[in-house]
Amino acid sequence: MKRNIQIEALDQIPLEKQRIELAERKCLGHPDSLADGIAESISQALCKTYLEEFGVVLHHNTDQGEVVAGESAPKFGGGRMIRPIYVLLDGRATKEWNGVKVPADAVAVEAANKYIHKILPDLDLNREIMIDCRLGTGSTDLRDVFKPNQGKAPRSNDTSFGVGHAPFSDVENIILNSANYIDTKLRKKYPAIGQDIKIMGLRDGNTITLTIACAIVDRYCKDIREYSEYMDILREEITAVAKKTSKRKVVVHVNTADDIKKKSVFLTVTGTSAEMGDDGSVGRGNRCNGLITPNRPMSMEATSGKNPINHIGKIYNLLSTQIAQDCVKKVDGIEEMYIRLLSQIGKPIDQPLVASVQVLPASGVKLKDINAEILGIVDDKLANVTEVTEKVIAGKLKTF
Amino acid sequence: MKRNIQIEALDQIPLEKQRIELAERKCLGHPDSLADGIAESISQALCKTYLEEFGVVLHHNTDQGEVVAGESAPKFGGGRMIRPIYVLLDGRATKEWNGVKVPADAVAVEAANKYIHKILPDLDLNREIMIDCRLGTGSTDLRDVFKPNQGKAPRSNDTSFGVGHAPFSDVENIILNSANYIDTKLRKKYPAIGQDIKIMGLRDGNTITLTIACAIVDRYCKDIREYSEYMDILREEITAVAKKTSKRKVVVHVNTADDIKKKSVFLTVTGTSAEMGDDGSVGRGNRCNGLITPNRPMSMEATSGKNPINHIGKIYNLLSTQIAQDCVKKVDGIEEMYIRLLSQIGKPIDQPLVASVQVLPASGVKLKDINAEILGIVDDKLANVTEVTEKVIAGKLKTF
Amino acid sequence: MKRNIQIEALDQIPLEKQRIELAERKCLGHPDSLADGIAESISQALCKTYLEEFGVVLHHNTDQGEVVAGESAPKFGGGRMIRPIYVLLDGRATKEWNGVKVPADAVAVEAANKYIHKILPDLDLNREIMIDCRLGTGSTDLRDVFKPNQGKAPRSNDTSFGVGHAPFSDVENIILNSANYIDTKLRKKYPAIGQDIKIMGLRDGNTITLTIACAIVDRYCKDIREYSEYMDILREEITAVAKKTSKRKVVVHVNTADDIKKKSVFLTVTGTSAEMGDDGSVGRGNRCNGLITPNRPMSMEATSGKNPINHIGKIYNLLSTQIAQDCVKKVDGIEEMYIRLLSQIGKPIDQPLVASVQVLPASGVKLKDINAEILGIVDDKLANVTEVTEKVIAGKLKTF
Amino acid sequence: MKRNIQIEALDQIPLEKQRIELAERKCLGHPDSLADGIAESISQALCKTYLEEFGVVLHHNTDQGEVVAGESAPKFGGGRMIRPIYVLLDGRATKEWNGVKVPADAVAVEAANKYIHKILPDLDLNREIMIDCRLGTGSTDLRDVFKPNQGKAPRSNDTSFGVGHAPFSDVENIILNSANYIDTKLRKKYPAIGQDIKIMGLRDGNTITLTIACAIVDRYCKDIREYSEYMDILREEITAVAKKTSKRKVVVHVNTADDIKKKSVFLTVTGTSAEMGDDGSVGRGNRCNGLITPNRPMSMEATSGKNPINHIGKIYNLLSTQIAQDCVKKVDGIEEMYIRLLSQIGKPIDQPLVASVQVLPASGVKLKDINAEILGIVDDKLANVTEVTEKVIAGKLKTF
Repeated sequence: MKRNIQIEALDQIPLEKQRIELAERKCLGHPDSLADGIAESISQALCKTYLEEFGVVLHHNTDQGEVVAGESAPKFGGGRMIRPIYVLLDGRATKEWNGVKVPADAVAVEAANKYIHKILPDLDLNREIMIDCRLGTGSTDLRDVFKPNQGKAPRSNDTSFGVGHAPFSDVENIILNSANYIDTKLRKKYPAIGQDIKIMGLRDGNTITLTIACAIVDRYCKDIREYSEYMDILREEITAVAKKTSKRKVVVHVNTADDIKKKSVFLTVTGTSAEMGDDGSVGRGNRCNGLITPNRPMSMEATSGKNPINHIGKIYNLLSTQIAQDCVKKVDGIEEMYIRLLSQIGKPIDQPLVASVQVLPASGVKLKDINAEILGIVDDKLANVTEVTEKVIAGKLKTF
Repeated sequence: MKRNIQIEALDQIPLEKQRIELAERKCLGHPDSLADGIAESISQALCKTYLEEFGVVLHHNTDQGEVVAGESAPKFGGGRMIRPIYVLLDGRATKEWNGVKVPADAVAVEAANKYIHKILPDLDLNREIMIDCRLGTGSTDLRDVFKPNQGKAPRSNDTSFGVGHAPFSDVENIILNSANYIDTKLRKKYPAIGQDIKIMGLRDGNTITLTIACAIVDRYCKDIREYSEYMDILREEITAVAKKTSKRKVVVHVNTADDIKKKSVFLTVTGTSAEMGDDGSVGRGNRCNGLITPNRPMSMEATSGKNPINHIGKIYNLLSTQIAQDCVKKVDGIEEMYIRLLSQIGKPIDQPLVASVQVLPASGVKLKDINAEILGIVDDKLANVTEVTEKVIAGKLKTF
Repeated sequence: MKRNIQIEALDQIPLEKQRIELAERKCLGHPDSLADGIAESISQALCKTYLEEFGVVLHHNTDQGEVVAGESAPKFGGGRMIRPIYVLLDGRATKEWNGVKVPADAVAVEAANKYIHKILPDLDLNREIMIDCRLGTGSTDLRDVFKPNQGKAPRSNDTSFGVGHAPFSDVENIILNSANYIDTKLRKKYPAIGQDIKIMGLRDGNTITLTIACAIVDRYCKDIREYSEYMDILREEITAVAKKTSKRKVVVHVNTADDIKKKSVFLTVTGTSAEMGDDGSVGRGNRCNGLITPNRPMSMEATSGKNPINHIGKIYNLLSTQIAQDCVKKVDGIEEMYIRLLSQIGKPIDQPLVASVQVLPASGVKLKDINAEILGIVDDKLANVTEVTEKVIAGKLKTF
Repeated sequence: MKRNIQIEALDQIPLEKQRIELAERKCLGHPDSLADGIAESISQALCKTYLEEFGVVLHHNTDQGEVVAGESAPKFGGGRMIRPIYVLLDGRATKEWNGVKVPADAVAVEAANKYIHKILPDLDLNREIMIDCRLGTGSTDLRDVFKPNQGKAPRSNDTSFGVGHAPFSDVENIILNSANYIDTKLRKKYPAIGQDIKIMGLRDGNTITLTIACAIVDRYCKDIREYSEYMDILREEITAVAKKTSKRKVVVHVNTADDIKKKSVFLTVTGTSAEMGDDGSVGRGNRCNGLITPNRPMSMEATSGKNPINHIGKIYNLLSTQIAQDCVKKVDGIEEMYIRLLSQIGKPIDQPLVASVQVLPASGVKLKDINAEILGIVDDKLANVTEVTEKVIAGKLKTF
């Protein structure tokens, strides 16, 4: 069946040329990101359990959950948790299949513990966090059991949509590169740099201002002087990353709410503000491209934790982002591109009700010249939609 | 101090003329909306308590919470709940002020019960729902205590932003009018029409397709025939509302996932899918204009439950929407308008870091002709930002 | 089959003639009694539900549960709850029978709410208490489904025992009569008298000292003077009850921990100390005769909440108490009597492994003269053991 | 001040000569014992924390808590948990002292995790159990802060009592020795022997019947034949222990509810029935002498988890048992002995309202001949009551 792919040209000022642009990323240890990561890790663990036991992925949606802040008493050189963080796991999973009980709750609790330990190695699982699980059961729709490598597209669980764009703007790239640099390089060198980091970028004309809030882990920071040094290091290192990414002027502010004199600073015991006063929820933070981009179309759907078989709120958000990035990479002449995939409940997910493609051609390029090429990519990506499912199960796609 | 208001003209195809437009509303009984409504009702109740006892509004943020689905056995003529819905209340509130204990937890639990009863009158509070409260405490920032009618702007709690647009498109208006019509008129006539309704609108060129999922309350619906009649009524009534709103062709689908023959339909005991299998979270549903609009800039911040004193994620989202609507109402020649207000932590909220105003002038209008008028309105609205706070406390502004 | 009933004479100093005797009652609003009452009300509600739907009582044991104290700010004239009481319901129930779902959780939550409201009418269910339910499922043993009026004895669930004694001593009678007088008469006249009352009785020779801790409800008590008056009233009224019950000297102390001068008194908002600092558990308070009697043999089993079909920890405690009381009433010449019924798992409950009867004959009486009469009563009561089940279901037997 | 110690002779048939005697022990992995052990471990951990930080033990009572069963799928050779066990920690603790926050909740959660791991090493803390903490705060009574080695007796927290007896009867000794033998020797040899063991002893004349319910850990037991072998081993080994303890005839039954043919046996994944269907509570199991003894006077108070400073329900139960055992050890001519210590709220704990001592002298012995010796021991033990506190803090006294 021919797919309903609608390509139209946008006639507008490219984002990079608009006066103001905002973007933001909540890094891995931010309470909302913790909630997202836990939800996604549970979904992945369930997928693995289902596959190991039954050879198929069964229905589940764990795109829910709440991280309720604890209480801490951070102190230079090493403070302590006063009251543990509380994490509620909810959502739904198949708990019985062909008469066999599935340990969905045990799997969820274990996945959550493991994920938290991976992200927050300084947090003591036996003392500083409490996990509760209220995972419900959902009605299993037998038709939509997913068998890998079978290629047949499951049916959409809902009438919903996903959106994606490409390429990333300067601001977006700077934020993503900074976050990545801290997580993969800088923290290894300076373990005092916590996991709860929020990077907000504002471009006003050609000046980009990054406002970074970064938790410092108290046991690795002996006093306020050392704390100030970490602020300097972060400012310098992120400025360097930004300069490699963009030619625009970049100003970096770190922990602007600090009052160094009063020693009222962003010091933590565990590296996350969830230890004291900041709750987190699934689906409230980054979109599946890792960013919050109020100048771009966004979906409200939580990508993390949804089942990767037939849940449009997950698959179409991931796929539309992939499509846009693929088109921009392969097709010359695209200044900006927006993909919206709309599903219809009960229809195969490789047949969206409409795939809406908006292209802002580069200066001098006409849509008709690149239309066919784009159409080919979109069509191909949709035909292979189950690749998204497989990559998600394998943990190869980020969802936040 | 002069406000940093940046007005720029957009040169783009107006949304109404783009090929594809999507919008959605989760009505009051949708699990996500329930969570939003509970969160906001708690914030309002806390505001009232603080004002009554201390004459000021104290710090709190109850923009968190989780509705965990129960289990039900709906049946034509009246089924029953099997397992109650579980609601977790979290977030933060000031629990002590000048040595006086504030009954924040009791207030939260009462507000949640009252709100749920208001929205879902068919749900038995003593049997069908369980409310748990894990409200934490936050550090009270004395500077930002809010005294009504004092006019002095509190300081921003965060570096964050709000976004708003006007006017509503055809699709947006149809969705809002339909929701409003059902909630204020149709349900009174037909109590079988539940509170959990999702209205999704897709405009493809000049055809608007509404896909409505509407819970039916079993005790008011005696059999499948009567159920089908309600489907017809909803289709007809919403079609009529849509026709009054727009000249475009409108097609209405109701409960497309139903299988009438198998009697597998959207029948509920209480009017919400939270009774069986659908969880809900604060901040995952409608933006503060009542809609989810992936073709428009959106903020990821939950508006509901945040404190209305200094929380930018609430105030600037509400205010930017108000500004846009006010401009469109008062200034001739605006085709479309987008407002983004960006705060800086610690600065007075009537002085945003930047107020970015994007105007798509109507055909034949130039921005410079209406620039001053717009500037005046934006400036005035910012000057009177505390009016937003007062209206929120009085329950006069919707947040979702 | 002949029952194994062993009757032996005790040759000991009767309790009434021993120097020291202790006994205690935790009245209905004491946190432990609240837990017991909730547990028993759930069991009764489940029995009714099972009978209505299936004509039989299905397996359940709800002899578990925890009342976690809230926080309150009592004040003469009327204070308020700060943080609600939290109640955890657990234990086990049959949730599905012949393919039909049983609303065990909803029934439990409703029963708990109703019971709490009955006992603590001044407590606002929507603001001052939170109920959570974690009722599990147990393996249904089909053989032991109970059909009323069928007379056939179910099989014992466990190897366990029950104990009972008669008659009540002076101290025991005074405590029971006092509690009953307050609950049925005094509180109606003086609603300030709360439900959380602990009555401890010590007999030292011929002097009985009652130490009463009685919560006062603040809204009905305007100041410390009125509070003191209630202390006087309680002292006088209980002294009068005691004098009607016993000829011994009785001294009554009320709220001895009070410091009237410092206004540090047992004042409450709701009538129970569970509102502030006192947790309660099932099975930690009174035995099924309404008392804690360290001078008497006691069973550690919680009677409340256990299923009345085949749970020895409930049935044999109730039955042994009934047998002892019946014997003492009908047979002349019993000074004291102790019954111990020991079950064997899997055997019919009307055939205990051993029914041990210890009799302290009255002065001048020999066991052999009353042996046959006692044997007849014990045998008859065992033969009609299912009457206990029926009375429990009908709410006609107290369990704490 | 002279202590009010009342010694009276009992003139009764010694328990060992009565026809029927019952006693029971719930071993360490029984759900009720788990709850007791967790409660006591939390109290000990809090004591240590308070002492380390402030040099004194602060007020707390953690004699509450609920173990809610999970769900498991045991299988010969190794099954798995389906749903984790849920543990609620409650009670009260001092959370702030002289302006310093005490990590009471974190300490409680850690103590619970550590204790569970110690008792149930086969249970995976990260997958098979969820711990929740709702520890409240109590009013700190400054007078009763306990400083070790200071010797001054704190004041009684309540009008309450403790009871104890000595010596242990044959049945009691057999039960205690069997439990001890399994826990210290047999399990090391046979790890298949789980921790959840209930030993009930019935003496009928000179025949003692032990009914043992013992969980088997599935990963160490490959099939039903091996299971049967373990039953034989337990029977033989316990019979041997019993024979060393008593000259009476002993019959041992193990897991009488098993149906070997149907393979319906007491097989577990973790060694405790809390994994599937059996909840547990603090204070519902053994008294502080490790036994449930319905033929002996018992206290209903939970010893475990109560603070060891001034909580009579703990201190007097432990002390009265110690006194009785000490007297029997040191004084010749005591056949049986019962101690009851009654406190008065607010009075020093070394000055009970009355210490009631009941002595059944051995044949040929008169009370007056041993009265002085007993008095001396009782008085001395009361004078040194704080030794109990110190031993409890040091973990040297068992409480269940």
